[in-house]
Amino acid sequence: MMTLALMSDAVMPYDHGMVRWEPDAAGRLRRAAVELFAERGVEATTVAAIAERAGVTERTFFRYFGDKREVLFGDQDRFTALFVDPVRGAPSGASPLDAVAAGLRAAPAWFGPDRRADSRIRGAVISDNPGLRERELLKMDAVAREIAVVLRERGVAEPAATIAARSGIAVFSTAFAAWLREDEPREMPELIEDGLRELRAIAG
Amino acid sequence: MMTLALMSDAVMPYDHGMVRWEPDAAGRLRRAAVELFAERGVEATTVAAIAERAGVTERTFFRYFGDKREVLFGDQDRFTALFVDPVRGAPSGASPLDAVAAGLRAAPAWFGPDRRADSRIRGAVISDNPGLRERELLKMDAVAREIAVVLRERGVAEPAATIAARSGIAVFSTAFAAWLREDEPREMPELIEDGLRELRAIAG
Repeated sequence: MMTLALMSDAVMPYDHGMVRWEPDAAGRLRRAAVELFAERGVEATTVAAIAERAGVTERTFFRYFGDKREVLFGDQDRFTALFVDPVRGAPSGASPLDAVAAGLRAAPAWFGPDRRADSRIRGAVISDNPGLRERELLKMDAVAREIAVVLRERGVAEPAATIAARSGIAVFSTAFAAWLREDEPREMPELIEDGLRELRAIAG
Repeated sequence: MMTLALMSDAVMPYDHGMVRWEPDAAGRLRRAAVELFAERGVEATTVAAIAERAGVTERTFFRYFGDKREVLFGDQDRFTALFVDPVRGAPSGASPLDAVAAGLRAAPAWFGPDRRADSRIRGAVISDNPGLRERELLKMDAVAREIAVVLRERGVAEPAATIAARSGIAVFSTAFAAWLREDEPREMPELIEDGLRELRAIAG
């Protein structure tokens, strides 16, 4: 089965033994939150517990995040730009789907092999929680809307722009869900290409 | 701009003057809720006010709905079946996208011209409220997952099944958003066909 899962900013790796000397408080808070959510569930995890495990105060937590769930979701603007900027920069003669594909091919840079284990933990947390699944869907929907805006700027008419953008995000989400499965050996670039090939085959 | 909007059970028309004699309490509650949400916003609307306008007690409200937001969302199982049953019933030789198209072509029966005005009010309520937009996305995601299940039963491999299902739902959502716009004269069947044509053109 496909599972919805987090497509968020990466968590920087860190060493528990040197937490207090590690400057990346936001990264430590993300890592601590994912661990605690996986261990105890989202409901039973408090901001105090996240802050304690990350070695910072609750006050520091709230400098970076509005609530405990926000920790699972990175900066939406940066995430969106990851997909949208390459669409804007695609050659002017590119078809709508080729322009969208340029965005999808850039995204795997954020979802490299070193992040797969963390992403799986996050994905499991999100797929168990309807509120987080909804938020994840809203996040990807926002990316699709921005891609459609850029396609229209490139001269693509509606409904082609929105359908190309949403179909492209369908390819991404399907590839990402496969990437989170323990029995899937392929990495994101190959999964994205496979999905794009299937989209062309299905529609053609 | 596209707006996310409600794709829910229809509200039966009713006459304010004969509310107490109208047997369809659930339909009256839906209609009353949509009116009040549009007038006052979701937050400021109470279950008591919805029940009062519908001419029933709060106790009656809670026989049909768990909370005020649920009124905007019809029976998920029935809604999903609307799309999925025709996919299951498509000719065995149909391509994945042709099978999905059979589902999309059945859906407009629920979104006829007589329901367009109500659907616009609901759409405006939902697009103004991130929580409701998330719920709407989750609802359509559930439909896409079920379509993918049926495609796999029909022998379609992954990721083709999920990509065909999600691209089809992208066509439906795009058509539905267009249908809600005041400047869109076409009805759902034509909008769906237009979207399917665009999907084939984009991908091909």
